[in-house]
Amino acid sequence: MATTFIKNGWYAAAWTEEIGPQLIERWICGDPLVMFRDRDGKAIALDGTCPHRSYPLALGRLKDDVLECGYHGLAFGTDGRCVRAPGGEPVQPAMRVRSYRLVERGGLIWIWPGDPALADASKIVDWWLTDPAWTTVHDTKLVNARQSLLIDNLMDLTHEASLHMGTLGNAAVIETPLITETLPDHVRATRMMLDIPPPGLFAQMGLSGTIDRGQVAEFHPPGLCLTIVTAKPRTENAPTLRWTVLHALTPETEDRTRYLWATARDYALDDERISDIWLTQTNSIFDQDVAALEAQEQRLRATPKPIELSVAADAGALAARKMLRTWPQ
Amino acid sequence: MATTFIKNGWYAAAWTEEIGPQLIERWICGDPLVMFRDRDGKAIALDGTCPHRSYPLALGRLKDDVLECGYHGLAFGTDGRCVRAPGGEPVQPAMRVRSYRLVERGGLIWIWPGDPALADASKIVDWWLTDPAWTTVHDTKLVNARQSLLIDNLMDLTHEASLHMGTLGNAAVIETPLITETLPDHVRATRMMLDIPPPGLFAQMGLSGTIDRGQVAEFHPPGLCLTIVTAKPRTENAPTLRWTVLHALTPETEDRTRYLWATARDYALDDERISDIWLTQTNSIFDQDVAALEAQEQRLRATPKPIELSVAADAGALAARKMLRTWPQ
Amino acid sequence: MATTFIKNGWYAAAWTEEIGPQLIERWICGDPLVMFRDRDGKAIALDGTCPHRSYPLALGRLKDDVLECGYHGLAFGTDGRCVRAPGGEPVQPAMRVRSYRLVERGGLIWIWPGDPALADASKIVDWWLTDPAWTTVHDTKLVNARQSLLIDNLMDLTHEASLHMGTLGNAAVIETPLITETLPDHVRATRMMLDIPPPGLFAQMGLSGTIDRGQVAEFHPPGLCLTIVTAKPRTENAPTLRWTVLHALTPETEDRTRYLWATARDYALDDERISDIWLTQTNSIFDQDVAALEAQEQRLRATPKPIELSVAADAGALAARKMLRTWPQ
Repeated sequence: MATTFIKNGWYAAAWTEEIGPQLIERWICGDPLVMFRDRDGKAIALDGTCPHRSYPLALGRLKDDVLECGYHGLAFGTDGRCVRAPGGEPVQPAMRVRSYRLVERGGLIWIWPGDPALADASKIVDWWLTDPAWTTVHDTKLVNARQSLLIDNLMDLTHEASLHMGTLGNAAVIETPLITETLPDHVRATRMMLDIPPPGLFAQMGLSGTIDRGQVAEFHPPGLCLTIVTAKPRTENAPTLRWTVLHALTPETEDRTRYLWATARDYALDDERISDIWLTQTNSIFDQDVAALEAQEQRLRATPKPIELSVAADAGALAARKMLRTWPQ
Repeated sequence: MATTFIKNGWYAAAWTEEIGPQLIERWICGDPLVMFRDRDGKAIALDGTCPHRSYPLALGRLKDDVLECGYHGLAFGTDGRCVRAPGGEPVQPAMRVRSYRLVERGGLIWIWPGDPALADASKIVDWWLTDPAWTTVHDTKLVNARQSLLIDNLMDLTHEASLHMGTLGNAAVIETPLITETLPDHVRATRMMLDIPPPGLFAQMGLSGTIDRGQVAEFHPPGLCLTIVTAKPRTENAPTLRWTVLHALTPETEDRTRYLWATARDYALDDERISDIWLTQTNSIFDQDVAALEAQEQRLRATPKPIELSVAADAGALAARKMLRTWPQ
Repeated sequence: MATTFIKNGWYAAAWTEEIGPQLIERWICGDPLVMFRDRDGKAIALDGTCPHRSYPLALGRLKDDVLECGYHGLAFGTDGRCVRAPGGEPVQPAMRVRSYRLVERGGLIWIWPGDPALADASKIVDWWLTDPAWTTVHDTKLVNARQSLLIDNLMDLTHEASLHMGTLGNAAVIETPLITETLPDHVRATRMMLDIPPPGLFAQMGLSGTIDRGQVAEFHPPGLCLTIVTAKPRTENAPTLRWTVLHALTPETEDRTRYLWATARDYALDDERISDIWLTQTNSIFDQDVAALEAQEQRLRATPKPIELSVAADAGALAARKMLRTWPQ
């Protein structure tokens, strides 16, 4: 498990509403950060450890945009520079913490943990989170498993027919071959299931008869998966439903991943009941994934030399791994 | 603690009644296995980890003698061969798990974790478990201590006079010298205590006056200890009582041991009250051992270079260790 | 964290009243010991692990000044020599545990874990614990942090103005420069705060108006800090109050420290209410330290290469570290 985190990339650090005037600690790619909003409401992320004596800065106090360490009172500005040391002595320039590049968009606060000079906000994938033609619900799971297992999970959706049988899965999922494409900046694995009965969750959305189910799994390095779904009824004149699931997979440590998920739909935009179904059902289904991922993580940790044999359905996941291996760190 | 498990040997994997149509996971010699019974009632043990993506097979489903992995649905027969992969693609021959050699006898399911070509069921020691002239009770303890500590414990029964004083022990136990024999396939340590008062548990069995107490501790590699007891009253015409305690010590991991125990007696065969005493008292006494063994394990883990000085009473335990060191692995 | 414990020095092992006829286990500098009093009331400390099979001796029995191991019954005298082995066989001279040099003074039992030939009881610092002109209260905290963090904490009292603002700290603490002296056998860091308002705890002691607050932090290797306080009111004729806080910091393991503290005052000697305030408030304030120290320890453990930048206020703590580095081990 000698993971090297890929730092030059956008990760989802938090949902907009999680960050406010209170200090919270959040781990990103192995490092503890402290997050808060300044007086203007701008989200701030600083290294979360005081460079004086390693006290967690999230245990300190925020006053007038100055974060004061709770142990000895060293104070830092939102740019990370130490503005005050005990006794009012001159502060050495090295006494500072890093201030991270953040972008707030579509309800998420994105962070760039790597070289700030390389951060390009136009690379953030969020079109449907920011588009008013889509309605979203979202939530977070903290998963005690390494990030790569979550990417595997989301790029090989055959597991729907086993782990999520009855809600997302039916026989068509495993019977339909996968088309995998490696594009310049992401991997796409497509499964087009024609004239199939709608699985349970689809039926709950009002679909009946048979449908053409389109399923696209995308991986955008270093930490974003999308599941893009179309459900087109074979019945004449029945409307096609579309939804997209965002899975922002932010490594907190080598073996813990923050999983921020959202679903966006282009139908029944104002229907609270449909939103409720999406929130409840997605949480319920993803809890199955979390349990499976944590069991898998435990097993891998207990196994000195795990075997790993692949099948055709792994093509998308394997392409994602390959892209990640060669991604600039 | 660089244990190398001895795999060429019979270990008790489970009690007969523990294994049924449901999947259970059991660790044997460092490896997780999945156990169940097939439609004919035959006990099956397979490697417990899916070779595809390391998901625990015990979290899967069993249907018509096919074990289907709960994550992606790879399916395995009772011989361990993969019979179905997602999408119905041809399965590579390497996609299989090991099926273990099992023997069900005397209420126990015995497993051979090593080379199947060497497995000889005639080597299983169980005569008194299968003999109708004996009545048995049994139970299981999971002990957070390495197996070798349990063997030491059972081959040096002087601890009865300290840890179990009043039930199994009295002064005679430490005052009587031990006769140790190393036989071709087991070690035997004998203590013959003549004309002694019966300890508490013996008195509960109805013995009074003084007795001749015979105590034989046997170790049969790699994981079986027996305590063979005779209690012969000095009173004329009073019957001799005999009982044997089986201690099947199956290493689950380096520092966890499954301890399946049974007591068998050749008297009061149908007396439920005596059976109850055996079950209750043995559990109570062995709980004292478990607490001691776990304290010892903790202390050894906390001690980089533990001292170990031996006394004469260790002869049986030392002979057992020596036999184990040279046992074919 | 490759600590080497300094063993040639006096550590506080226990409060007098903690040790009695019952066996208790106590860890000192990485080693488990067993402590008790003999029939004459003399405190005894022996190695806490049986050299036979590593069973914790504190789980044994004490009878007539003989400690009997609870597992196999090996018995040890208060000098550590084995006086009895199972079967009454002659005991090899190597079968013994170490008996430690102890000194009971001022309510504390001091231990010398190193070379007994070097133990000089006149080096124990305790004048105010044994002086009837002072009244003391005391208690213990077990801290999940390495000892060095506690020394840092107590030799850099600027943290009072941050962690203990309102009780011990106010602005004067950080505004007043520190005078650090390295003496032959201890380090002293002095802060003289003139004409300042009394912080909360000082006000509770009845001080009002402004005061001259003298604060001396001393470190006596290997494990004793003292905080020596004078509070002299500027009001004419108002009496000066003095108190001293002992902080005996005994490393139990690399990352756990037993913290025995006492406060001694030279005023209101018989006033139970003042004693109650000292006991309650000190516990409450030190709980803040414990929480901070454990947060710091956790952060250091989670950080492969922690940064450590110092400021002027660290002078006392840095001098203490330097003295400890060159202390004879």
